[in-house]
Amino acid sequence: MAIQFHVDARHGNARSGRLVTHHGVIETPVFMPVGTAATVKGVPQDLLEELGVQILLSNTYHLYLRPGVEIVRRFGGLHDFMAWPRAILTDSGGFQVFSLNELRKVTEEGVTFRSHLDGSSHFFTPESAIEAQIGLGADIIMAFDECTEYPADRARARESMELTLRWAARSKKYFEEHKHETPWRFAGESGRNTQSLFGIVQGGMDLELRKESAERTIEIDFPGYAIGGLSVGEPRERTREVVEATLQYLPKDKPRYLMGVGTPEEIVEYSNLGIDMMDCVLPTRAARHGLLFTSEGKISIKQARYTEDEGPLDRNCGCLVCRSYSRAYLRHLYAAGEILAQVLNTLHNLSFYLDTMRRVRHSIQLGEESRFISEVWSRPKP
Amino acid sequence: MAIQFHVDARHGNARSGRLVTHHGVIETPVFMPVGTAATVKGVPQDLLEELGVQILLSNTYHLYLRPGVEIVRRFGGLHDFMAWPRAILTDSGGFQVFSLNELRKVTEEGVTFRSHLDGSSHFFTPESAIEAQIGLGADIIMAFDECTEYPADRARARESMELTLRWAARSKKYFEEHKHETPWRFAGESGRNTQSLFGIVQGGMDLELRKESAERTIEIDFPGYAIGGLSVGEPRERTREVVEATLQYLPKDKPRYLMGVGTPEEIVEYSNLGIDMMDCVLPTRAARHGLLFTSEGKISIKQARYTEDEGPLDRNCGCLVCRSYSRAYLRHLYAAGEILAQVLNTLHNLSFYLDTMRRVRHSIQLGEESRFISEVWSRPKP
Repeated sequence: MAIQFHVDARHGNARSGRLVTHHGVIETPVFMPVGTAATVKGVPQDLLEELGVQILLSNTYHLYLRPGVEIVRRFGGLHDFMAWPRAILTDSGGFQVFSLNELRKVTEEGVTFRSHLDGSSHFFTPESAIEAQIGLGADIIMAFDECTEYPADRARARESMELTLRWAARSKKYFEEHKHETPWRFAGESGRNTQSLFGIVQGGMDLELRKESAERTIEIDFPGYAIGGLSVGEPRERTREVVEATLQYLPKDKPRYLMGVGTPEEIVEYSNLGIDMMDCVLPTRAARHGLLFTSEGKISIKQARYTEDEGPLDRNCGCLVCRSYSRAYLRHLYAAGEILAQVLNTLHNLSFYLDTMRRVRHSIQLGEESRFISEVWSRPKP
Repeated sequence: MAIQFHVDARHGNARSGRLVTHHGVIETPVFMPVGTAATVKGVPQDLLEELGVQILLSNTYHLYLRPGVEIVRRFGGLHDFMAWPRAILTDSGGFQVFSLNELRKVTEEGVTFRSHLDGSSHFFTPESAIEAQIGLGADIIMAFDECTEYPADRARARESMELTLRWAARSKKYFEEHKHETPWRFAGESGRNTQSLFGIVQGGMDLELRKESAERTIEIDFPGYAIGGLSVGEPRERTREVVEATLQYLPKDKPRYLMGVGTPEEIVEYSNLGIDMMDCVLPTRAARHGLLFTSEGKISIKQARYTEDEGPLDRNCGCLVCRSYSRAYLRHLYAAGEILAQVLNTLHNLSFYLDTMRRVRHSIQLGEESRFISEVWSRPKP
């Protein structure tokens, strides 16, 4: 088999464990930084390793358009192309195509969309999305789904969920027939080196549809399950409600991945509900806009109040940014539009997220998860 | 005294030695990367240290405008402000103000100019430029000069040279009266911790004026001398001629700094003529435009021919970029407008320059400088 998942400790619904891949062991719950175009914007790969990143997420849609799947395949896959020795997960492109709004058209067969780069027309099907992901060679790849828009009425949510279920079956069929085509240099020798395809639960905000989607996705049988279709504009309480409801129908012995979430508070909260994997552009994107997460809340480094602040970004953070640089220097770099602002801010935010997840895992192992959550939620939010 | 300079080996006119500063020993000949706004664009300070950067150049004009000298002074100077433990040299602002063209007005007293940031009006004098540089606290600071424009007739070049000489005397006088105001935290305790002020030779492209400028600048007496007013549009052969002529009038026991030069070939050539210190934006600026220096010549990484090139940027380079990444990946990052392109390209170009200077020093020590120069000059230049 491709990946293995072991749960080592439980506390309430939360669990900590290990996801074993061909490119290393991932401790869960894990936060996956987003490296859209085969790079976490501004951060060299060796610094990501130093930060303790165990798995990155990269986007099939972007890589398909540029540099193109064929080029990556010839390099032996994304790991070799981007010189990243640890694990990678690719999304299927479904969510990105969904985000194009006016530029796409959905049929039973697949989705026609226009490139955000040059307006050229493209067609993704479950088969072509999996083919692309096999070419990219990530350790974990995702079924091609339709991300249901918000709001959607029940009829629309069911229709969309049914389409995603049919696409999930087609994704799996194509994967099973082609999974040995992974471009890893040593792939295929033992049969252990293939990729793993995860299924995605949809169903909009309707809890009964979520239950049905979960059960029928599990029938198709995947080595891991994602909860998709959230963070699409719904209120935060609704997200939590859907996650909690969906989780109870997902198998306890397989990894459970909540897509596109969230704030530091949310990644702690969802870990507590039993989520094992999460990803979000928030820490990296916010960093590039000067928004920094600290143990005392979020700060906007562009504010004039930091002009002469000799203190570190976060007194409780041991990252290389907080060890070396002052708030005043970071403020200066941001105000001057310096590239280094984006590099250092991204390093800090990622470090903060990864450190938060380290503490979550430790708390679960010690059975103190609830206390840690109260602590995180009680942080001031300026 | 502030700095000490020791020549350890000579070969022809070339020499290798050590410049001892309060912030470490600099092996010469040395190339100083440019960190205009208290940052070498895109590169964290710890990576600069790893590259072996021993001294950085930063720009008084830019720092005066943003974040302002007073803020840096309160931090104890640039070293503390930007968390850079090694040596720093600041220019006096003269060259930057000169570059503003239409926005400046020169009088005997000083220069009125408009900020390139917001158009606000400012006035620099030799006294205020030295005051600013004392506040910034670099190890080596520069006299305030007028960079003579090119072309300039003899009368104009003489007039400009005379002004620079009067400003040099005023710069020195102000410095001697205020040099103990250096904001370093431990400054003043032993008297060894003050800064060093270098004089600047001008005189346009006229070799007799250059001789006169050198002799009269030496009369004022500085611990080091710079050759200014070059790389202002003159042909490259002319630059070399002026450097060679000027060098013979500069004292052999003091460091000799050629400002704003040059290509990899030029830094080798000028080292051979007896220059000890150089700076240039070329490696860092070119990197941001995808122009990369290699042992086989300059390459433009944006070219389509690198799309599938699995080889390293430079087979003979051991920098972290060449060790880890392919040309195809670097080309992808550049084409996608990724920040990491600028970070990695800058790291490589700086590494190439620093490695070139390491080889120059080694060649001088072994007496093989001329052979090394032939080798550098015979590189293909695509």
